[in-house]
Amino acid sequence: MKIPTQLTLLKSSFTLKHKPFFSLSFGLLLLVFAFYSNAEEPMFEIPSDALETARELRDEGLKSSHAYSIVKGLTTEVGPRFAGTEQDKRAQEWGVELLTELGFANVRIEEFPLNLWTRGNPGDEVVEISSPFPQPLVALSLGGSAATPEGGIEAEVVFFSNFDALESFDASEDSLSGKIVYVNDRMIAAQTAEGYSPANRKRLNAWRLAEDRGAVGVLIRSVGTSNNRFPHAGVMRIPEDRSPKIPAMALSAPDADQLERINAMGETMKVKMQTYAGYRGEVTSGNVIGEIVGSEAPEEIVVIGGHLDTWDNSTGALDDASGIGITVAAAKQILDLPEAPRRTIRVILWGAEEVGLIGARAYAAAREKDGTLANHVIGSESDLGAAPVWRYRTNVAESALPAMAAVARELAPLGILHGNNESSGGPDIFPLKEKGMPVARLEQQGMKMFEFHHTPNDTLDKVVSSELAQNQAAWALWTYLMAELDVDFRGK
Amino acid sequence: MKIPTQLTLLKSSFTLKHKPFFSLSFGLLLLVFAFYSNAEEPMFEIPSDALETARELRDEGLKSSHAYSIVKGLTTEVGPRFAGTEQDKRAQEWGVELLTELGFANVRIEEFPLNLWTRGNPGDEVVEISSPFPQPLVALSLGGSAATPEGGIEAEVVFFSNFDALESFDASEDSLSGKIVYVNDRMIAAQTAEGYSPANRKRLNAWRLAEDRGAVGVLIRSVGTSNNRFPHAGVMRIPEDRSPKIPAMALSAPDADQLERINAMGETMKVKMQTYAGYRGEVTSGNVIGEIVGSEAPEEIVVIGGHLDTWDNSTGALDDASGIGITVAAAKQILDLPEAPRRTIRVILWGAEEVGLIGARAYAAAREKDGTLANHVIGSESDLGAAPVWRYRTNVAESALPAMAAVARELAPLGILHGNNESSGGPDIFPLKEKGMPVARLEQQGMKMFEFHHTPNDTLDKVVSSELAQNQAAWALWTYLMAELDVDFRGK
Repeated sequence: MKIPTQLTLLKSSFTLKHKPFFSLSFGLLLLVFAFYSNAEEPMFEIPSDALETARELRDEGLKSSHAYSIVKGLTTEVGPRFAGTEQDKRAQEWGVELLTELGFANVRIEEFPLNLWTRGNPGDEVVEISSPFPQPLVALSLGGSAATPEGGIEAEVVFFSNFDALESFDASEDSLSGKIVYVNDRMIAAQTAEGYSPANRKRLNAWRLAEDRGAVGVLIRSVGTSNNRFPHAGVMRIPEDRSPKIPAMALSAPDADQLERINAMGETMKVKMQTYAGYRGEVTSGNVIGEIVGSEAPEEIVVIGGHLDTWDNSTGALDDASGIGITVAAAKQILDLPEAPRRTIRVILWGAEEVGLIGARAYAAAREKDGTLANHVIGSESDLGAAPVWRYRTNVAESALPAMAAVARELAPLGILHGNNESSGGPDIFPLKEKGMPVARLEQQGMKMFEFHHTPNDTLDKVVSSELAQNQAAWALWTYLMAELDVDFRGK
Repeated sequence: MKIPTQLTLLKSSFTLKHKPFFSLSFGLLLLVFAFYSNAEEPMFEIPSDALETARELRDEGLKSSHAYSIVKGLTTEVGPRFAGTEQDKRAQEWGVELLTELGFANVRIEEFPLNLWTRGNPGDEVVEISSPFPQPLVALSLGGSAATPEGGIEAEVVFFSNFDALESFDASEDSLSGKIVYVNDRMIAAQTAEGYSPANRKRLNAWRLAEDRGAVGVLIRSVGTSNNRFPHAGVMRIPEDRSPKIPAMALSAPDADQLERINAMGETMKVKMQTYAGYRGEVTSGNVIGEIVGSEAPEEIVVIGGHLDTWDNSTGALDDASGIGITVAAAKQILDLPEAPRRTIRVILWGAEEVGLIGARAYAAAREKDGTLANHVIGSESDLGAAPVWRYRTNVAESALPAMAAVARELAPLGILHGNNESSGGPDIFPLKEKGMPVARLEQQGMKMFEFHHTPNDTLDKVVSSELAQNQAAWALWTYLMAELDVDFRGK
């Protein structure tokens, strides 16, 4: 059963037809609510020692610049770190060194195999309008895209205003024969980042719909919210039984505008594409892991972290050096306590997130195999940049909700609202959640993230240290309480 | 003699020691000023017919979207148009077509020779840190730069915090032998754009100072004010008797930050550079010219315009399609009057501005040769983007100042202040000014221009149509009055 929230009750009071009765009704409703809420859901009390420690961690986190200095280190000393490359290896070594130097226990790399995809030499990727108005365009291949035939392709562009229009277009296998498909959906910026999924459908699936209809190439407006002239990278959705045969590339927003204008003039447009993108065969990547071993129930595990890899075109300060800085710095605060909390805290610097959650899937599969999956009591990932946390959501058993409400009351002084119980937990947490692990998320403000997401422009100067500190404070408090409180988030 | 301005008088009143006398002194000073000003400088009265026409042009310009549609046309239908290339040719043809279709007289291209410089294939330009933290950097060759030897160079970086430090560094010919020089000056954003010149010294001259000291390459922080990860292109200052032998490149601001951070760590840094930049030999470019022939003194010429060429990496919406849109749309308003103004208005779409005012110099030399230089009564160029005009400055004979003050009073309703008599007139006007032509300038707000200047990010979406309309209004009024008023701006 869902507990009616105070907001729902207030809303129903506003719909009363007899205005004069409003304040009386309102007072009565508040009374009823107070009683009802008390009766149904006993307040969970965080034990006073734990509460004191949690608040100290929070207040100390707010003053810290440790998260920022970790982000600075990773983006400066490693830079870009695309999964499966030499830079990825260097990032893993950097991670091992960081966790070891900070004093975490059981520091290790858990390796996993990966079919490496690269774009080849980025400078060799060419997209240009060949008619009616010859000019180069700024674009890059999407992850998983195929190369053009040697020498490139040149074809007429078929303009689709949005993904729905492509999806509902004549599905016969030659309806777009020999054409280059262009899809123009725009992404809406939102605090919740919820504009991403709808706009991302074209990145994930346009190649398949185009290929099925005989197209020779795909172009999309980048999935992003800035008008800066950067194309946004990103992986396509590639089923196990099929690999793209045609090139698929993302144009920067101003270049997409250019195509839109030429199309609006009623002109037939031809575009040249040349890429050398493709899969290169199996290589190794890895998740970097460190722990704070629990003092009373070391076999029970709280999973936190961010992902270590980036797109090849980016030093990934926001995506996701910040997630690593926030969670490692928060965990380090807990590591420095006189006594470790009850449960083990496992910090994971996830590998190969950008290319399809490869590290996260490998980790979940390995835990299923070694039988420790059920020991994962709760997990969360920080992976939406460096902006302040504005909302806390969970996805736990109903019996654990009073405890989560108590935690939310301690997050509130950081300006964090308490949301519903439908959290995803974060991308790398998803494979564990699918296998039954409870999750929660400290949700960051999402308005600006997609201005920088998967572009070269995701650099350290976009990160505000004081905003990272607010994140660190929230994570230190939350992680400590998850490990210290004797609450079963899975329920019976 | 310089007329003391009201501001100077007010300022001296504020320095009076006896506060109680302030308001009395102030009142007296105002009286004195009013008398003095009246006595010294009789008010110039714009004839009522001309005044009415000028005001109508201004009010009509404010409502126009013609300037915007010209910018849209040039940036969409031509795109980038680097001097001496095929795209430059297409831009000239576009210009001839535009001026012809609008009904200008004597539309023509005046060709001139140009030693073509190109960077080669932009994708082949590589700059990367090779140690201590290997990673690619975002950079491009500066105009006039030499290529690296085949296979590129790798050398230790010598870090100079600013241009002065390089200038005053040991001048012996091997003091930087085998090194790559890096210069880190930052540019300050300003309404007047006056941060440009000091920051630009490193772009113009660092190559020469480095080469003289035995360096094998030069890197600079881009001359620009944005933290977006774009390098800013721009030409170096190359004397007639000498050509660069070493490569010189500009890093984007975030990449410059990266070098700065590594340097601050006390690390020795090595960088690899590879470029194919260089001069390619003589080609032809051109100035595109159209006129409104004067009704009474057709031999007298008022010169207006913007420049047609861009950097190779940019569609140049701000730099300088906007200057062309503004001045052509303003001239077209005048062209549509029932009667042409007294003097000829010559609209020039200048060629090869970016690579060193080649078109402007060729034009001035040709006018000297054909004996019409002295007929150029006044000139001005619009070339600081698309932001509103905030100040009007002149550089004319003192005897013409009362007329200019009268013009300034008509510009004031557009939010335009009246500045001093030390205007430059604009880059392409400079060679004519050097030969004695009076100039003026409708100065645009410069705070944001250098966020986009000479980068791929200078695209149509950065242009606000209503702001261009304010420019067009000012230019229509100003150009009409310059051509219609019987004022000698050169003086006796």
